[in-house]
Amino acid sequence: MDTVFRYKKEDLLDFVLRYLTKLGVPAGDAKIVGKVLMCADIRGVDSHGLHRLGSYYGNRILKGYIDPLTPYKVIRETPTTALIDGGNGCGQVVSYKAMKMCIEKAQNSGLAAVTVKNSNHFGIAGYYALMAMNHDMIGIALTNSQPLVAPTYGKTAVVGTNPIALAAPSYKADPFVLDMATSAVAFGKIQLYAKRNEHIPIGWGIDDTGQVTNDPNRIKSGGIGALLPLGGMEITAGYKGYGLAIMVEILCSILSGSNFLTNVGGPAKPEPTGVGHFFMAINIEAFRPVIDFKKHLDDMIQLLKNSPLAVGRDEILVAGEKEFALARFNEKHGVPLIKPIVDDLIKDGEKVGVPFDLVPVHESVSMD
Amino acid sequence: MDTVFRYKKEDLLDFVLRYLTKLGVPAGDAKIVGKVLMCADIRGVDSHGLHRLGSYYGNRILKGYIDPLTPYKVIRETPTTALIDGGNGCGQVVSYKAMKMCIEKAQNSGLAAVTVKNSNHFGIAGYYALMAMNHDMIGIALTNSQPLVAPTYGKTAVVGTNPIALAAPSYKADPFVLDMATSAVAFGKIQLYAKRNEHIPIGWGIDDTGQVTNDPNRIKSGGIGALLPLGGMEITAGYKGYGLAIMVEILCSILSGSNFLTNVGGPAKPEPTGVGHFFMAINIEAFRPVIDFKKHLDDMIQLLKNSPLAVGRDEILVAGEKEFALARFNEKHGVPLIKPIVDDLIKDGEKVGVPFDLVPVHESVSMD
Repeated sequence: MDTVFRYKKEDLLDFVLRYLTKLGVPAGDAKIVGKVLMCADIRGVDSHGLHRLGSYYGNRILKGYIDPLTPYKVIRETPTTALIDGGNGCGQVVSYKAMKMCIEKAQNSGLAAVTVKNSNHFGIAGYYALMAMNHDMIGIALTNSQPLVAPTYGKTAVVGTNPIALAAPSYKADPFVLDMATSAVAFGKIQLYAKRNEHIPIGWGIDDTGQVTNDPNRIKSGGIGALLPLGGMEITAGYKGYGLAIMVEILCSILSGSNFLTNVGGPAKPEPTGVGHFFMAINIEAFRPVIDFKKHLDDMIQLLKNSPLAVGRDEILVAGEKEFALARFNEKHGVPLIKPIVDDLIKDGEKVGVPFDLVPVHESVSMD
Repeated sequence: MDTVFRYKKEDLLDFVLRYLTKLGVPAGDAKIVGKVLMCADIRGVDSHGLHRLGSYYGNRILKGYIDPLTPYKVIRETPTTALIDGGNGCGQVVSYKAMKMCIEKAQNSGLAAVTVKNSNHFGIAGYYALMAMNHDMIGIALTNSQPLVAPTYGKTAVVGTNPIALAAPSYKADPFVLDMATSAVAFGKIQLYAKRNEHIPIGWGIDDTGQVTNDPNRIKSGGIGALLPLGGMEITAGYKGYGLAIMVEILCSILSGSNFLTNVGGPAKPEPTGVGHFFMAINIEAFRPVIDFKKHLDDMIQLLKNSPLAVGRDEILVAGEKEFALARFNEKHGVPLIKPIVDDLIKDGEKVGVPFDLVPVHESVSMD
């Protein structure tokens, strides 16, 4: 188990600000990137948090693969829609603006959708869905991503893990926040099992012949094996997860005119990624009083949580619940970063002359 | 293998018209119900086709559980949104009108969403998505449904199979048409395996303790066992399928104020079902020229179909492709109905004095 250090939010944000502005990112934009990345760490999605500050953003700006100014441009616009060129900048910056546009348009018009092309990784999709939710709307955020998943009957990674996020406001219960990749699991999980020398469950991935495998070492990036879509192999309806991933691809890349599938670059490739995003805000008030919606959602969540438990289980969870519990804890006790991530941040900082000299909060506690 | 009879579309539609009008359904509405049901048979989704004419519609109208007049009412409306009360009528009738409203609104406003409450089963979700697609839009149709699926860590059927349909127009390739339940499989598949005395694959369903089972006889309607959500058990990410099902529930029932989860009635229950639907149309032209979208989609489909095959497989399919091939065949050779369905239609017809006296097309051929 790695040592966990906890930091004050303000300190971490300040570091990101110093680090990214040093690389030429405007201060306001750097704050957006920092907030989105840190939101992942706070909600327990470490894989998408500050961990990626150097590898996905800083290093790529340094090498000229990402434009630090994010010179995005609205290409087409109506009172309910917009198409934005992300200018090969930071995905978070254009995505934040895109969802803000969605929210404003939905306030006036009931609903709105904005697509973005020519962008880069935008962090957790859930962040943008939550933005709309905080305005009493249903927020939706989708993105395509580098190929890691095989289509049903295929044997190589052609499709991204293309996540779907949807957030809906509740009254007293935790809101419903779905934020899920359309692959069975994240690639990081395969790597973790490989490191531990453990078998992976059937349904997570295939080897380089396209057969399902329990050996994590037979699934590597670079075209050797692939993740399976949600549902696994054909017999357990993996074609549905594959279909959902292509649905996301259509809304993100085909609707925006962005790169798709194997044309999407990964963070390790020496070129712009050409990622596409899709955002939507649905103004609940256009359909029914928001308070009715929220109480109705509470009732549904209650029914779910009170439904009969499988033997050996002690709670039925609703999407987002675990993350809200973690976030409450982390907001109180500090943002947790494991030692390897802290080490990376120290190295990232050294590389550009911005020392990661933060002092962890005194009492480091664990939730368990 | 059951004998297959093939009928002329016009003949079948005429029978549905005679049957439903006899039960008090207005002629125009009866045609809509007939078209939606037959579309399922033509596209190879027999489970949702004419097979259900009696059990889901006719018999329920006879018993007073469905209002044959479908007295739907628009409750709230903006240029981009509407909430409709389905008046406990035929789901197809109000859904057809709802998607028509969506299309008209999206023609003027770029996009539109309509929710429906107090409705009944609407047939295949794909039908409505296709309606929008035929107007160069991306069409989306969702519905909640009777509880058949257990939430992750639960042991009883609390959640519907809540389908997601999305259709997008292509140029030369078959369009992308996703139409999938958010459960791992349909309940009918479990029944089929039980009938054949075969084991079901792990990941389809759980027994009455909440443990995964390969015995189809341990999964019955009425609270004994349940289907698993897409993804199966927790270890293979079944919580994602469960999350998707609740996402559908929120858009269909919470946004419209309809029944949810176990409050949704099934076709065997002596009461209105209180089903909710959600429809959306996205006008592609608001984002980019339709022709560019279509050609871009063709390119993506081409890339998918040309990607490396798993050993032993001979084709990668795209959602909708199989259904379009079947539809082309069935449009030419007649709508196929297996003998048990024909027998049911004969009984249904006799019950209300409308004989199913159709003559199958002379040469009955099979696609295989």
